[in-house]
Amino acid sequence: MELLTRTLVRVRFSDVDSMGVVWHGQYIRYFEDGREDFGNEHNINYLDFHGRGIVIPIVNIECDYRKPLVYGDSAIVETRFIDTEAAKIRYAYTIYNNRSQEIVATGSTTQVFLNLKHELLLTFPPFFLDWKKKNGLFTGVNK
Amino acid sequence: MELLTRTLVRVRFSDVDSMGVVWHGQYIRYFEDGREDFGNEHNINYLDFHGRGIVIPIVNIECDYRKPLVYGDSAIVETRFIDTEAAKIRYAYTIYNNRSQEIVATGSTTQVFLNLKHELLLTFPPFFLDWKKKNGLFTGVNK
Amino acid sequence: MELLTRTLVRVRFSDVDSMGVVWHGQYIRYFEDGREDFGNEHNINYLDFHGRGIVIPIVNIECDYRKPLVYGDSAIVETRFIDTEAAKIRYAYTIYNNRSQEIVATGSTTQVFLNLKHELLLTFPPFFLDWKKKNGLFTGVNK
Amino acid sequence: MELLTRTLVRVRFSDVDSMGVVWHGQYIRYFEDGREDFGNEHNINYLDFHGRGIVIPIVNIECDYRKPLVYGDSAIVETRFIDTEAAKIRYAYTIYNNRSQEIVATGSTTQVFLNLKHELLLTFPPFFLDWKKKNGLFTGVNK
Repeated sequence: MELLTRTLVRVRFSDVDSMGVVWHGQYIRYFEDGREDFGNEHNINYLDFHGRGIVIPIVNIECDYRKPLVYGDSAIVETRFIDTEAAKIRYAYTIYNNRSQEIVATGSTTQVFLNLKHELLLTFPPFFLDWKKKNGLFTGVNK
Repeated sequence: MELLTRTLVRVRFSDVDSMGVVWHGQYIRYFEDGREDFGNEHNINYLDFHGRGIVIPIVNIECDYRKPLVYGDSAIVETRFIDTEAAKIRYAYTIYNNRSQEIVATGSTTQVFLNLKHELLLTFPPFFLDWKKKNGLFTGVNK
Repeated sequence: MELLTRTLVRVRFSDVDSMGVVWHGQYIRYFEDGREDFGNEHNINYLDFHGRGIVIPIVNIECDYRKPLVYGDSAIVETRFIDTEAAKIRYAYTIYNNRSQEIVATGSTTQVFLNLKHELLLTFPPFFLDWKKKNGLFTGVNK
Repeated sequence: MELLTRTLVRVRFSDVDSMGVVWHGQYIRYFEDGREDFGNEHNINYLDFHGRGIVIPIVNIECDYRKPLVYGDSAIVETRFIDTEAAKIRYAYTIYNNRSQEIVATGSTTQVFLNLKHELLLTFPPFFLDWKKKNGLFTGVNK
Protein backbone atom coordinates (compact mmCIF):
# COMPACT_ATOMS: atom_id res chain seq x y z
CA MET A 1 0.00 0.00 0.00
CA GLU A 2 1.29 3.41 -0.83
CA LEU A 3 0.71 6.30 1.53
CA LEU A 4 0.63 9.58 -0.31
CA THR A 5 -0.80 13.03 0.20
CA ARG A 6 -1.25 15.75 -2.40
CA THR A 7 -1.05 19.33 -1.16
CA LEU A 8 -1.83 22.53 -3.02
CA VAL A 9 0.70 25.31 -2.45
CA ARG A 10 0.29 28.81 -3.82
CA VAL A 11 3.42 30.74 -4.70
CA ARG A 12 3.57 33.87 -2.59
CA PHE A 13 5.00 37.13 -3.91
CA SER A 14 7.63 36.91 -1.20
CA ASP A 15 8.61 33.37 -2.30
CA VAL A 16 10.01 34.75 -5.54
CA ASP A 17 13.59 36.01 -5.76
CA SER A 18 15.11 38.74 -7.89
CA MET A 19 15.46 36.32 -10.82
CA GLY A 20 11.67 36.19 -10.90
CA VAL A 21 11.49 32.55 -9.80
CA VAL A 22 10.74 30.88 -6.49
CA TRP A 23 13.89 31.04 -4.36
CA HIS A 24 15.38 27.56 -4.01
CA GLY A 25 15.20 27.64 -0.20
CA GLN A 26 11.40 27.98 -0.35
CA TYR A 27 11.06 24.41 -1.60
CA ILE A 28 12.15 23.26 1.86
CA ARG A 29 9.04 25.02 3.13
CA TYR A 30 6.90 23.41 0.43
CA PHE A 31 8.24 20.02 1.53
CA GLU A 32 7.22 20.97 5.07
CA ASP A 33 3.74 21.93 3.86
CA GLY A 34 3.45 18.53 2.23
CA ARG A 35 4.82 16.67 5.24
CA GLU A 36 2.47 18.43 7.66
CA ASP A 37 -0.48 17.78 5.42
CA PHE A 38 0.51 14.12 5.23
CA GLY A 39 0.76 14.00 9.02
CA ASN A 40 -2.68 15.52 9.48
CA GLU A 41 -4.28 13.27 6.89
CA HIS A 42 -2.68 10.08 8.16
CA ASN A 43 -2.82 10.85 11.90
CA ILE A 44 0.90 10.96 12.39
CA ASN A 45 1.65 14.63 12.73
CA TYR A 46 4.28 16.41 14.71
CA LEU A 47 2.02 16.88 17.73
CA ASP A 48 1.29 13.14 17.90
CA PHE A 49 5.01 12.64 18.54
CA HIS A 50 5.39 15.65 20.76
CA GLY A 51 2.56 14.48 23.03
CA ARG A 52 4.51 11.25 23.61
CA GLY A 53 7.76 12.99 24.46
CA ILE A 54 9.36 12.32 21.11
CA VAL A 55 10.92 14.89 18.82
CA ILE A 56 11.63 14.06 15.20
CA PRO A 57 14.36 16.36 13.88
CA ILE A 58 15.31 16.31 10.24
CA VAL A 59 18.79 14.84 9.74
CA ASN A 60 18.98 14.92 5.97
CA ILE A 61 17.35 16.87 3.19
CA GLU A 62 17.85 16.69 -0.55
CA CYS A 63 16.27 18.59 -3.40
CA ASP A 64 16.66 18.45 -7.18
CA TYR A 65 15.36 21.44 -9.07
CA ARG A 66 14.15 20.86 -12.63
CA LYS A 67 11.92 23.76 -13.67
CA PRO A 68 11.27 27.14 -12.12
CA LEU A 69 8.03 28.23 -10.49
CA VAL A 70 7.01 31.86 -10.97
CA TYR A 71 4.70 34.27 -9.23
CA GLY A 72 1.11 33.41 -10.00
CA ASP A 73 1.85 29.69 -10.20
CA SER A 74 0.51 27.16 -7.81
CA ALA A 75 2.12 23.83 -7.14
CA ILE A 76 1.10 20.38 -6.01
CA VAL A 77 3.38 18.75 -3.46
CA GLU A 78 3.10 14.99 -3.53
CA THR A 79 4.38 13.59 -0.23
CA ARG A 80 5.06 9.86 -0.18
CA PHE A 81 5.96 7.85 2.92
CA ILE A 82 9.06 5.73 2.28
CA ASP A 83 8.96 2.57 4.33
CA THR A 84 12.27 1.91 6.12
CA GLU A 85 13.56 -0.82 8.39
CA ALA A 86 15.75 1.59 10.28
CA ALA A 87 14.25 3.72 13.04
CA LYS A 88 13.71 6.69 10.76
CA ILE A 89 10.97 8.55 8.97
CA ARG A 90 11.58 9.12 5.31
CA TYR A 91 9.45 11.07 2.87
CA ALA A 92 9.92 11.54 -0.85
CA TYR A 93 8.45 14.64 -2.46
CA THR A 94 7.48 15.44 -6.03
CA ILE A 95 6.44 19.00 -6.74
CA TYR A 96 4.34 19.64 -9.85
CA ASN A 97 3.44 22.88 -11.53
CA ASN A 98 -0.32 22.80 -11.02
CA ARG A 99 -1.05 24.26 -14.45
CA SER A 100 1.34 22.37 -16.71
CA GLN A 101 1.58 19.28 -14.49
CA GLU A 102 5.32 19.26 -15.17
CA ILE A 103 7.60 18.12 -12.38
CA VAL A 104 9.41 21.17 -10.99
CA ALA A 105 11.34 19.53 -8.17
CA THR A 106 11.87 16.26 -6.36
CA GLY A 107 13.43 15.63 -2.99
CA SER A 108 13.46 13.75 0.27
CA THR A 109 13.75 14.24 4.00
CA THR A 110 14.91 11.87 6.72
CA GLN A 111 13.94 12.27 10.37
CA VAL A 112 15.06 10.39 13.46
CA PHE A 113 13.40 9.84 16.82
CA LEU A 114 14.80 11.52 19.94
CA ASN A 115 13.47 11.28 23.46
CA LEU A 116 13.19 14.33 25.70
CA LYS A 117 16.79 13.87 26.82
CA HIS A 118 17.70 14.19 23.14
CA GLU A 119 18.85 10.60 23.01
CA LEU A 120 18.50 8.83 19.68
CA LEU A 121 15.93 6.02 19.68
CA LEU A 122 17.27 3.00 17.83
CA THR A 123 13.91 1.28 17.46
CA PHE A 124 10.52 2.57 16.36
CA PRO A 125 8.44 4.09 19.19
CA PRO A 126 5.50 1.73 19.99
CA PHE A 127 2.74 4.05 18.80
CA PHE A 128 4.56 4.57 15.51
CA LEU A 129 4.94 0.85 15.11
CA ASP A 130 1.19 0.54 15.64
CA TRP A 131 0.66 3.18 13.00
CA LYS A 132 2.93 1.32 10.58
CA LYS A 133 1.14 -1.95 11.27
CA LYS A 134 -2.25 -0.36 10.71
CA ASN A 135 -1.02 0.91 7.38
CA GLY A 136 0.51 -2.36 6.24
CA LEU A 137 4.09 -1.12 6.52
CA PHE A 138 7.30 -2.76 7.78
CA THR A 139 7.22 -3.54 11.50
CA GLY A 140 9.93 -6.19 11.93
CA VAL A 141 11.44 -9.29 10.43
CA ASN A 142 8.34 -11.49 10.78
CA LYS A 143 5.73 -9.12 9.52
CA MET B 1 21.58 60.08 27.96
CA GLU B 2 20.72 58.39 24.72
CA LEU B 3 21.07 54.65 24.36
CA LEU B 4 21.73 53.70 20.78
CA THR B 5 23.30 50.82 18.91
CA ARG B 6 24.41 50.75 15.29
CA THR B 7 24.27 47.39 13.52
CA LEU B 8 25.61 46.45 10.12
CA VAL B 9 23.23 44.31 8.06
CA ARG B 10 24.14 42.80 4.71
CA VAL B 11 21.38 42.36 2.18
CA ARG B 12 21.09 38.68 1.33
CA PHE B 13 20.18 37.47 -2.14
CA SER B 14 17.10 35.89 -0.62
CA ASP B 15 16.07 39.21 1.00
CA VAL B 16 15.37 40.67 -2.43
CA ASP B 17 12.00 40.23 -4.12
CA SER B 18 11.09 39.96 -7.78
CA MET B 19 11.09 43.77 -8.11
CA GLY B 20 14.82 43.63 -7.39
CA VAL B 21 14.52 45.36 -4.02
CA VAL B 22 14.54 44.10 -0.44
CA TRP B 23 11.07 42.71 0.32
CA HIS B 24 9.29 45.00 2.78
CA GLY B 25 8.80 42.22 5.32
CA GLN B 26 12.57 41.78 5.66
CA TYR B 27 12.86 45.12 7.43
CA ILE B 28 11.08 43.54 10.39
CA ARG B 29 14.04 41.16 10.56
CA TYR B 30 16.49 44.05 10.26
CA PHE B 31 14.73 45.72 13.20
CA GLU B 32 15.17 42.46 15.10
CA ASP B 33 18.87 42.39 14.20
CA GLY B 34 19.19 45.89 15.60
CA ARG B 35 17.17 45.13 18.72
CA GLU B 36 19.17 41.99 19.50
CA ASP B 37 22.42 43.83 18.98
CA PHE B 38 21.21 46.57 21.31
CA GLY B 39 20.27 43.97 23.90
CA ASN B 40 23.68 42.31 23.73
CA GLU B 41 25.54 45.60 23.88
CA HIS B 42 23.51 47.02 26.74
CA ASN B 43 23.02 43.81 28.74
CA ILE B 44 19.30 43.67 28.32
CA ASN B 45 18.79 40.94 25.80
CA TYR B 46 15.96 38.51 25.40
CA LEU B 47 17.68 35.82 27.50
CA ASP B 48 18.09 38.25 30.43
CA PHE B 49 14.29 38.42 30.54
CA HIS B 50 13.75 34.78 29.81
CA GLY B 51 16.02 33.73 32.69
CA ARG B 52 13.76 35.71 35.03
CA GLY B 53 10.55 34.14 33.79
CA ILE B 54 9.52 37.13 31.72
CA VAL B 55 8.60 37.12 28.07
CA ILE B 56 8.51 40.34 26.09
CA PRO B 57 6.24 39.91 23.06
CA ILE B 58 5.95 42.62 20.47
CA VAL B 59 2.52 44.25 20.56
CA ASN B 60 3.01 46.91 17.91
CA ILE B 61 5.24 47.41 14.93
CA GLU B 62 5.42 50.25 12.45
CA CYS B 63 7.62 50.85 9.45
CA ASP B 64 7.91 53.68 6.92
CA TYR B 65 9.74 52.86 3.73
CA ARG B 66 11.52 55.72 1.96
CA LYS B 67 14.13 54.27 -0.42
CA PRO B 68 14.74 50.76 -1.67
CA LEU B 69 17.71 48.59 -0.78
CA VAL B 70 19.06 46.33 -3.50
CA TYR B 71 21.21 43.24 -3.66
CA GLY B 72 24.81 44.11 -2.90
CA ASP B 73 23.82 46.90 -0.52
CA SER B 74 24.53 46.84 3.14
CA ALA B 75 22.57 48.81 5.70
CA ILE B 76 23.10 50.31 9.11
CA VAL B 77 20.29 49.80 11.60
CA GLU B 78 20.30 52.44 14.30
CA THR B 79 18.34 51.15 17.30
CA ARG B 80 17.38 53.75 19.89
CA PHE B 81 15.80 53.01 23.26
CA ILE B 82 12.72 55.16 23.79
CA ASP B 83 12.19 55.89 27.44
CA THR B 84 8.59 55.32 28.54
CA GLU B 85 6.71 55.70 31.82
CA ALA B 86 4.38 52.85 30.96
CA ALA B 87 5.55 49.27 31.56
CA LYS B 88 6.69 48.79 27.98
CA ILE B 89 9.85 48.58 25.94
CA ARG B 90 9.94 50.83 22.94
CA TYR B 91 12.62 51.06 20.29
CA ALA B 92 12.87 53.44 17.35
CA TYR B 93 14.84 52.33 14.30
CA THR B 94 16.47 54.23 11.50
CA ILE B 95 17.90 52.21 8.65
CA TYR B 96 20.56 53.83 6.47
CA ASN B 97 22.01 52.71 3.18
CA ASN B 98 25.59 52.11 4.25
CA ARG B 99 27.03 53.47 1.01
CA SER B 100 24.95 56.61 0.40
CA GLN B 101 24.08 57.18 4.08
CA GLU B 102 20.53 57.95 2.97
CA ILE B 103 17.71 56.92 5.26
CA VAL B 104 15.91 53.97 3.69
CA ALA B 105 13.39 53.24 6.43
CA THR B 106 12.29 54.25 9.91
CA GLY B 107 10.12 52.41 12.37
CA SER B 108 9.36 51.35 15.90
CA THR B 109 8.44 48.38 18.01
CA THR B 110 6.63 48.17 21.34
CA GLN B 111 6.96 45.22 23.69
CA VAL B 112 5.17 44.40 26.92
CA PHE B 113 6.14 42.24 29.90
CA LEU B 114 4.34 38.95 30.55
CA ASN B 115 4.99 36.49 33.32
CA LEU B 116 5.11 32.75 32.69
CA LYS B 117 1.32 32.54 33.14
CA HIS B 118 1.12 35.02 30.26
CA GLU B 119 -0.26 37.71 32.54
CA LEU B 120 0.55 41.29 31.63
CA LEU B 121 2.87 43.05 34.09
CA LEU B 122 1.64 46.57 34.77
CA THR B 123 4.90 47.76 36.33
CA PHE B 124 8.51 47.40 35.30
CA PRO B 125 10.17 44.16 36.49
CA PRO B 126 12.73 45.00 39.24
CA PHE B 127 15.84 44.03 37.27
CA PHE B 128 14.67 46.13 34.34
CA LEU B 129 14.09 49.07 36.69
CA ASP B 130 17.66 48.62 37.93
CA TRP B 131 18.84 48.63 34.35
CA LYS B 132 16.91 51.81 33.64
CA LYS B 133 18.29 53.46 36.77
CA LYS B 134 21.83 52.49 35.86
CA ASN B 135 21.32 54.09 32.48
CA GLY B 136 19.76 57.29 33.78
CA LEU B 137 16.29 56.50 32.46
CA PHE B 138 12.80 56.97 33.91
CA THR B 139 12.16 54.84 36.99
CA GLY B 140 9.19 56.51 38.69
CA VAL B 141 7.76 59.84 39.72
CA ASN B 142 10.49 60.64 42.27
CA LYS B 143 13.50 59.69 40.29
CA MET C 1 -20.01 49.39 -0.74
CA GLU C 2 -17.37 47.63 1.18
CA LEU C 3 -14.74 45.60 -0.61
CA LEU C 4 -13.46 42.81 1.56
CA THR C 5 -11.83 39.44 1.11
CA ARG C 6 -11.48 36.69 3.68
CA THR C 7 -8.46 34.42 3.34
CA LEU C 8 -7.68 31.23 5.20
CA VAL C 9 -4.08 30.96 6.37
CA ARG C 10 -2.64 27.87 8.01
CA VAL C 11 0.11 28.34 10.56
CA ARG C 12 3.22 26.53 9.35
CA PHE C 13 5.61 24.85 11.74
CA SER C 14 8.29 27.24 10.51
CA ASP C 15 6.07 30.27 11.26
CA VAL C 16 6.37 29.57 14.99
CA ASP C 17 9.25 30.95 17.02
CA SER C 18 11.00 29.56 20.06
CA MET C 19 8.31 31.01 22.36
CA GLY C 20 5.87 28.61 20.69
CA VAL C 21 3.90 31.36 18.98
CA VAL C 22 3.83 32.70 15.45
CA TRP C 23 6.82 35.05 15.02
CA HIS C 24 5.59 38.64 14.75
CA GLY C 25 7.24 39.16 11.37
CA GLN C 26 5.11 36.40 9.83
CA TYR C 27 1.99 38.55 10.12
CA ILE C 28 3.46 40.74 7.38
CA ARG C 29 3.31 37.66 5.18
CA TYR C 30 -0.26 36.94 6.29
CA PHE C 31 -1.18 40.51 5.30
CA GLU C 32 0.41 39.81 1.94
CA ASP C 33 -1.59 36.59 1.60
CA GLY C 34 -4.75 38.60 2.25
CA ARG C 35 -3.78 41.42 -0.11
CA GLU C 36 -2.95 39.04 -2.94
CA ASP C 37 -6.18 37.16 -2.45
CA PHE C 38 -8.07 40.45 -2.51
CA GLY C 39 -6.28 41.40 -5.74
CA ASN C 40 -7.16 38.11 -7.39
CA GLU C 41 -10.77 38.22 -6.27
CA HIS C 42 -11.32 41.85 -7.24
CA ASN C 43 -9.22 41.89 -10.43
CA ILE C 44 -6.68 44.33 -9.15
CA ASN C 45 -3.66 42.23 -8.45
CA TYR C 46 -0.01 43.00 -8.65
CA LEU C 47 0.30 41.72 -12.24
CA ASP C 48 -2.53 44.03 -13.40
CA PHE C 49 -0.32 46.94 -12.36
CA HIS C 50 2.89 45.39 -13.58
CA GLY C 51 1.43 44.83 -17.07
CA ARG C 52 0.76 48.56 -17.27
CA GLY C 53 4.24 49.59 -16.23
CA ILE C 54 3.27 50.50 -12.70
CA VAL C 55 4.86 49.23 -9.52
CA ILE C 56 3.12 49.62 -6.19
CA PRO C 57 5.68 49.49 -3.39
CA ILE C 58 4.59 49.48 0.21
CA VAL C 59 5.51 52.73 1.95
CA ASN C 60 3.98 52.09 5.36
CA ILE C 61 3.03 49.08 7.40
CA GLU C 62 1.53 48.85 10.87
CA CYS C 63 0.53 45.91 12.98
CA ASP C 64 -1.03 45.56 16.42
CA TYR C 65 -0.71 42.17 18.05
CA ARG C 66 -3.43 41.14 20.50
CA LYS C 67 -3.33 37.37 20.92
CA PRO C 68 -0.82 34.74 19.90
CA LEU C 69 -1.34 32.12 17.22
CA VAL C 70 0.20 28.72 17.84
CA TYR C 71 1.15 25.74 15.74
CA GLY C 72 -1.93 23.87 14.62
CA ASP C 73 -4.00 27.06 14.45
CA SER C 74 -5.40 28.46 11.29
CA ALA C 75 -6.30 32.10 10.83
CA ILE C 76 -8.66 34.17 8.74
CA VAL C 77 -7.20 37.33 7.25
CA GLU C 78 -9.88 39.88 6.47
CA THR C 79 -8.53 42.36 3.92
CA ARG C 80 -10.54 45.54 3.51
CA PHE C 81 -9.94 48.17 0.83
CA ILE C 82 -9.73 51.63 2.40
CA ASP C 83 -10.93 54.28 -0.01
CA THR C 84 -8.57 57.26 -0.20
CA GLU C 85 -8.57 60.53 -2.11
CA ALA C 86 -4.78 60.56 -2.33
CA ALA C 87 -3.06 58.51 -5.02
CA LYS C 88 -2.45 55.56 -2.73
CA ILE C 89 -3.72 52.08 -2.06
CA ARG C 90 -4.60 51.35 1.53
CA TYR C 91 -5.71 48.10 3.04
CA ALA C 92 -6.80 47.37 6.60
CA TYR C 93 -6.38 43.84 7.91
CA THR C 94 -8.04 41.96 10.73
CA ILE C 95 -6.67 38.54 11.54
CA TYR C 96 -8.91 36.12 13.42
CA ASN C 97 -8.11 32.83 15.07
CA ASN C 98 -10.20 30.54 12.91
CA ARG C 99 -11.22 28.36 15.85
CA SER C 100 -12.04 30.90 18.57
CA GLN C 101 -12.93 33.72 16.16
CA GLU C 102 -10.97 36.05 18.44
CA ILE C 103 -9.07 38.90 16.82
CA VAL C 104 -5.36 38.11 17.00
CA ALA C 105 -4.00 41.11 15.09
CA THR C 106 -5.00 44.19 13.15
CA GLY C 107 -2.96 46.29 10.79
CA SER C 108 -2.70 48.28 7.61
CA THR C 109 -0.52 48.80 4.57
CA THR C 110 -0.15 51.81 2.29
CA GLN C 111 1.16 51.56 -1.26
CA VAL C 112 2.00 54.24 -3.80
CA PHE C 113 2.15 54.18 -7.60
CA LEU C 114 5.50 54.45 -9.37
CA ASN C 115 6.13 54.39 -13.11
CA LEU C 116 8.97 52.37 -14.61
CA LYS C 117 11.38 55.29 -14.06
CA HIS C 118 10.45 54.96 -10.37
CA GLU C 119 8.74 58.35 -10.38
CA LEU C 120 5.87 58.78 -7.97
CA LEU C 121 2.47 59.16 -9.65
CA LEU C 122 0.46 61.90 -7.96
CA THR C 123 -2.87 60.88 -9.47
CA PHE C 124 -4.56 57.51 -9.82
CA PRO C 125 -3.56 55.56 -12.95
CA PRO C 126 -6.52 55.53 -15.41
CA PHE C 127 -7.19 51.80 -15.18
CA PHE C 128 -7.24 51.98 -11.40
CA LEU C 129 -9.65 54.92 -11.58
CA ASP C 130 -11.90 52.77 -13.78
CA TRP C 131 -11.64 50.01 -11.24
CA LYS C 132 -12.59 52.38 -8.43
CA LYS C 133 -15.54 53.73 -10.44
CA LYS C 134 -16.78 50.25 -11.19
CA ASN C 135 -16.68 49.49 -7.49
CA GLY C 136 -18.44 52.68 -6.40
CA LEU C 137 -15.32 54.18 -4.80
CA PHE C 138 -13.90 57.72 -4.75
CA THR C 139 -12.76 58.92 -8.18
CA GLY C 140 -12.68 62.73 -7.84
CA VAL C 141 -14.54 65.71 -6.45
CA ASN C 142 -17.64 65.29 -8.66
CA LYS C 143 -18.16 61.61 -8.33
CA MET D 1 45.09 24.77 -4.34
CA GLU D 2 42.00 24.83 -2.23
CA LEU D 3 39.59 27.73 -2.45
CA LEU D 4 37.75 28.19 0.79
CA THR D 5 35.97 30.99 2.61
CA ARG D 6 34.97 31.10 6.26
CA THR D 7 31.88 33.14 7.12
CA LEU D 8 30.54 34.08 10.53
CA VAL D 9 26.77 33.72 10.85
CA ARG D 10 24.84 34.79 13.91
CA VAL D 11 21.72 32.86 14.80
CA ARG D 12 18.76 35.21 14.72
CA PHE D 13 15.85 34.86 17.12
CA SER D 14 13.62 34.28 14.10
CA ASP D 15 15.89 31.47 12.83
CA VAL D 16 14.88 29.32 15.80
CA ASP D 17 11.79 27.13 15.66
CA SER D 18 9.41 26.05 18.39
CA MET D 19 11.74 23.20 19.38
CA GLY D 20 14.24 25.88 20.42
CA VAL D 21 16.72 25.03 17.65
CA VAL D 22 17.52 26.62 14.32
CA TRP D 23 14.85 25.52 11.82
CA HIS D 24 16.40 23.13 9.30
CA GLY D 25 15.41 25.32 6.34
CA GLN D 26 17.58 28.16 7.67
CA TYR D 27 20.73 26.23 6.88
CA ILE D 28 19.96 26.77 3.19
CA ARG D 29 20.26 30.47 3.93
CA TYR D 30 23.51 29.91 5.84
CA PHE D 31 24.86 28.07 2.79
CA GLU D 32 23.85 31.10 0.73
CA ASP D 33 25.64 33.41 3.16
CA GLY D 34 28.76 31.31 2.73
CA ARG D 35 28.43 31.12 -1.05
CA GLU D 36 27.97 34.87 -1.41
CA ASP D 37 30.89 35.55 0.85
CA PHE D 38 32.99 33.18 -1.22
CA GLY D 39 31.90 34.96 -4.41
CA ASN D 40 32.81 38.36 -3.02
CA GLU D 41 36.15 37.20 -1.69
CA HIS D 42 37.14 35.34 -4.85
CA ASN D 43 35.65 37.74 -7.40
CA ILE D 44 33.11 35.34 -8.74
CA ASN D 45 29.87 36.53 -7.29
CA TYR D 46 26.37 36.40 -8.65
CA LEU D 47 26.62 39.89 -10.21
CA ASP D 48 29.78 38.89 -12.12
CA PHE D 49 27.64 36.31 -13.92
CA HIS D 50 24.59 38.49 -14.21
CA GLY D 51 26.60 41.27 -15.90
CA ARG D 52 27.57 38.76 -18.59
CA GLY D 53 24.05 37.57 -19.23
CA ILE D 54 24.44 34.35 -17.33
CA VAL D 55 22.23 33.06 -14.55
CA ILE D 56 23.39 30.28 -12.29
CA PRO D 57 20.36 28.58 -10.73
CA ILE D 58 20.78 25.92 -8.10
CA VAL D 59 19.80 22.49 -9.42
CA ASN D 60 20.66 20.38 -6.40
CA ILE D 61 21.00 20.93 -2.69
CA GLU D 62 21.85 18.49 0.08
CA CYS D 63 22.21 18.96 3.80
CA ASP D 64 23.10 16.61 6.65
CA TYR D 65 22.25 17.82 10.13
CA ARG D 66 24.38 16.57 13.00
CA LYS D 67 23.94 18.91 15.97
CA PRO D 68 21.44 21.65 16.70
CA LEU D 69 22.23 25.35 16.85
CA VAL D 70 20.34 27.38 19.42
CA TYR D 71 19.55 31.04 19.97
CA GLY D 72 22.64 32.90 21.11
CA ASP D 73 24.95 30.65 19.08
CA SER D 74 27.00 31.83 16.19
CA ALA D 75 28.24 29.57 13.44
CA ILE D 76 31.10 29.44 10.97
CA VAL D 77 30.17 28.43 7.45
CA GLU D 78 33.12 27.00 5.58
CA THR D 79 32.45 27.20 1.84
CA ARG D 80 34.73 25.14 -0.37
CA PHE D 81 34.81 25.28 -4.16
CA ILE D 82 34.60 21.77 -5.62
CA ASP D 83 36.41 21.56 -8.92
CA THR D 84 34.34 19.80 -11.61
CA GLU D 85 34.93 18.90 -15.22
CA ALA D 86 31.25 19.31 -16.08
CA ALA D 87 29.90 22.80 -16.73
CA LYS D 88 28.66 23.25 -13.18
CA ILE D 89 29.52 25.12 -10.01
CA ARG D 90 29.71 22.96 -6.92
CA TYR D 91 30.27 24.06 -3.36
CA ALA D 92 30.64 21.94 -0.26
CA TYR D 93 29.74 23.48 3.09
CA THR D 94 30.72 22.65 6.63
CA ILE D 95 28.97 24.55 9.39
CA TYR D 96 30.65 24.71 12.79
CA ASN D 97 29.32 25.88 16.11
CA ASN D 98 31.58 28.86 16.69
CA ARG D 99 31.89 28.19 20.41
CA SER D 100 32.42 24.42 20.57
CA GLN D 101 33.91 24.12 17.07
CA GLU D 102 31.76 21.03 16.59
CA ILE D 103 30.41 20.34 13.13
CA VAL D 104 26.68 21.05 13.14
CA ALA D 105 25.91 20.43 9.47
CA THR D 106 27.48 19.62 6.14
CA GLY D 107 26.06 19.99 2.66
CA SER D 108 26.51 20.90 -0.94
CA THR D 109 24.95 22.89 -3.77
CA THR D 110 25.22 22.45 -7.52
CA GLN D 111 24.55 25.27 -9.98
CA VAL D 112 24.39 25.28 -13.77
CA PHE D 113 24.91 28.05 -16.31
CA LEU D 114 21.96 29.39 -18.30
CA ASN D 115 22.00 32.14 -20.90
CA LEU D 116 19.33 34.83 -20.97
CA LYS D 117 17.09 32.59 -23.11
CA HIS D 118 17.31 30.11 -20.22
CA GLU D 119 19.25 27.64 -22.35
CA LEU D 120 21.68 25.39 -20.53
CA LEU D 121 25.35 26.07 -21.33
CA LEU D 122 27.20 22.81 -21.79
CA THR D 123 30.67 24.34 -21.50
CA PHE D 124 32.15 26.80 -19.01
CA PRO D 125 31.58 30.48 -19.91
CA PRO D 126 34.93 32.03 -21.03
CA PHE D 127 35.27 34.44 -18.08
CA PHE D 128 34.64 31.58 -15.64
CA LEU D 129 37.26 29.48 -17.42
CA ASP D 130 39.68 32.38 -16.99
CA TRP D 131 38.79 32.51 -13.33
CA LYS D 132 39.39 28.78 -12.97
CA LYS D 133 42.73 29.04 -14.79
CA LYS D 134 43.82 31.90 -12.57
CA ASN D 135 43.02 29.79 -9.54
CA GLY D 136 44.76 26.67 -10.79
CA LEU D 137 41.55 24.72 -11.33
CA PHE D 138 40.42 22.33 -14.06
CA THR D 139 40.01 24.04 -17.45
CA GLY D 140 40.08 21.18 -19.97
CA VAL D 141 41.86 18.00 -20.95
CA ASN D 142 45.22 19.65 -21.71
CA LYS D 143 45.46 21.91 -18.72
